[in-house]
Amino acid sequence: MSEKTELLYHVDGDLVPASEATVSVDDRGFRYGDAAFETLRAYGGTIFAWGRHVDRLERTCEALSLEHGLSTDDLRERIDATLAANDLADAYVRLSITRGVQPGKLTPQPEVDPTVVVYVKPLPRGGLEGERVWDEPATVRTVETRRMPDEAIPAGAKTHNYLNGILARAELRNRDEPADEALMRDLEGHVAEGATSNLFFVRDGTLHTPTADGPVLPGITRALVLELAAEGGISVREDRCDLEDVLAADEAFLTNRTWELRPVATLDGREIGGGPVTERLSRLYDERIEDACYR
Amino acid sequence: MSEKTELLYHVDGDLVPASEATVSVDDRGFRYGDAAFETLRAYGGTIFAWGRHVDRLERTCEALSLEHGLSTDDLRERIDATLAANDLADAYVRLSITRGVQPGKLTPQPEVDPTVVVYVKPLPRGGLEGERVWDEPATVRTVETRRMPDEAIPAGAKTHNYLNGILARAELRNRDEPADEALMRDLEGHVAEGATSNLFFVRDGTLHTPTADGPVLPGITRALVLELAAEGGISVREDRCDLEDVLAADEAFLTNRTWELRPVATLDGREIGGGPVTERLSRLYDERIEDACYR
Repeated sequence: MSEKTELLYHVDGDLVPASEATVSVDDRGFRYGDAAFETLRAYGGTIFAWGRHVDRLERTCEALSLEHGLSTDDLRERIDATLAANDLADAYVRLSITRGVQPGKLTPQPEVDPTVVVYVKPLPRGGLEGERVWDEPATVRTVETRRMPDEAIPAGAKTHNYLNGILARAELRNRDEPADEALMRDLEGHVAEGATSNLFFVRDGTLHTPTADGPVLPGITRALVLELAAEGGISVREDRCDLEDVLAADEAFLTNRTWELRPVATLDGREIGGGPVTERLSRLYDERIEDACYR
Repeated sequence: MSEKTELLYHVDGDLVPASEATVSVDDRGFRYGDAAFETLRAYGGTIFAWGRHVDRLERTCEALSLEHGLSTDDLRERIDATLAANDLADAYVRLSITRGVQPGKLTPQPEVDPTVVVYVKPLPRGGLEGERVWDEPATVRTVETRRMPDEAIPAGAKTHNYLNGILARAELRNRDEPADEALMRDLEGHVAEGATSNLFFVRDGTLHTPTADGPVLPGITRALVLELAAEGGISVREDRCDLEDVLAADEAFLTNRTWELRPVATLDGREIGGGPVTERLSRLYDERIEDACYR
């Protein structure tokens, strides 16, 4: 793809230049953030872990009582068409489904004419011969903003209501030193997750991550890392985690779709860094992608 | 205004037919619900309690670290222009300000090119000679969804992250009997507010409402009712309230900008209804509007 060409997005069935891609101001996705989304990665033209994204999207829509009526094939075709139109093989993909425009009430109506948007953006190749999207290990800071509890909005739902994470990130702006990620705790003070990432840490050879029984988005990269660790004979604990446990860790890293595994350089100024377990899991993750998408 | 004419909205400085009023899919208001809004009432061509809306909007934007750079006069001119273009004197008005389009990061950038949208919709005349926008007193049901705690998103901020209220309202769809409003409790079980309204109730002549120290949006109609009660010599208590207290009330009503004061016919099937205090406060409220906007 030429650097000069404008990206095309897919909006409600049409491919349109990104600068002309719009939704109605009456769309509930805009008025209320009443929408589900998924962040996906295309590697070598293949959507990685598509089935897992479909499952999570379904769970989000179930949590929102959003019956969009679109088939999985239909959604996939829109994504594939968008990648093809942009001549992209390695890309970031965002799929958003809103409840569309409904008559002026807050109460959602069962009959939905959804708005579907596919965003894309070029990313470097992944897998064994790939390069990271991040330059450096992450500097992380804990923030005062607490992760939204399940009782208010189910943590497992990935929605356009993203202010919780934005407020967390906004706190970083007011700090003396810049940071890449804001680490949120839950209302009880247990470590939950970053604004756009899940947290892992290693102590005495055991891999730890906050349990998804707490208010933690069940990241798909997170699930894959847990599986790779189990397959690789690394002992794993999903549990309530305290900040002190993370600060005393031998290694720590963050995961999300685009970062994949990103070591934590420092947490609240304390040096942690990656290490042998992080490196091994990164390698296993790259192998998984290489096998699934480039061979 | 003729019934056939399409409404005009005000989007980023332009008056456009509602059906053509759009925002970019990259606007943070759409991607993340990263936006502030106010619901206002125009009575006889006057925006009622404009200064209070300006103050609350400012507090919302402060909570979001959203420095939109627009003057109060500028915002007011957009609203007045929209009402004039639609030839509307009695209307619902919604003013939304988003953080606009920013480069692809979640972390909000300080330099903001905001998106400003003014929505309008005709409503009946208000004040002493007005008519209510609702047909009947409200049927209300408590729901399982809990009001978002302050620590996750400040309750005083009125934002496009409205899923908490939508999930509350969606619960009503699955009930045997329809209801007009979903009453949310906070995480401790105290009564907080409706999805789009504040709650008041009367016991032994005293007016009660959940304290805004809890996760309660400080409604402007709520504030006016509290003032009118104080001026009228009605004893008032803002406090933590239990559901049992409301169920045992002599009268109860809901408030918001368009409903004004709406009696609660039933709560969870138990009859409550309005009464002398509700009627007196409704009358005082209508007088206030009549004086401020129609004389």
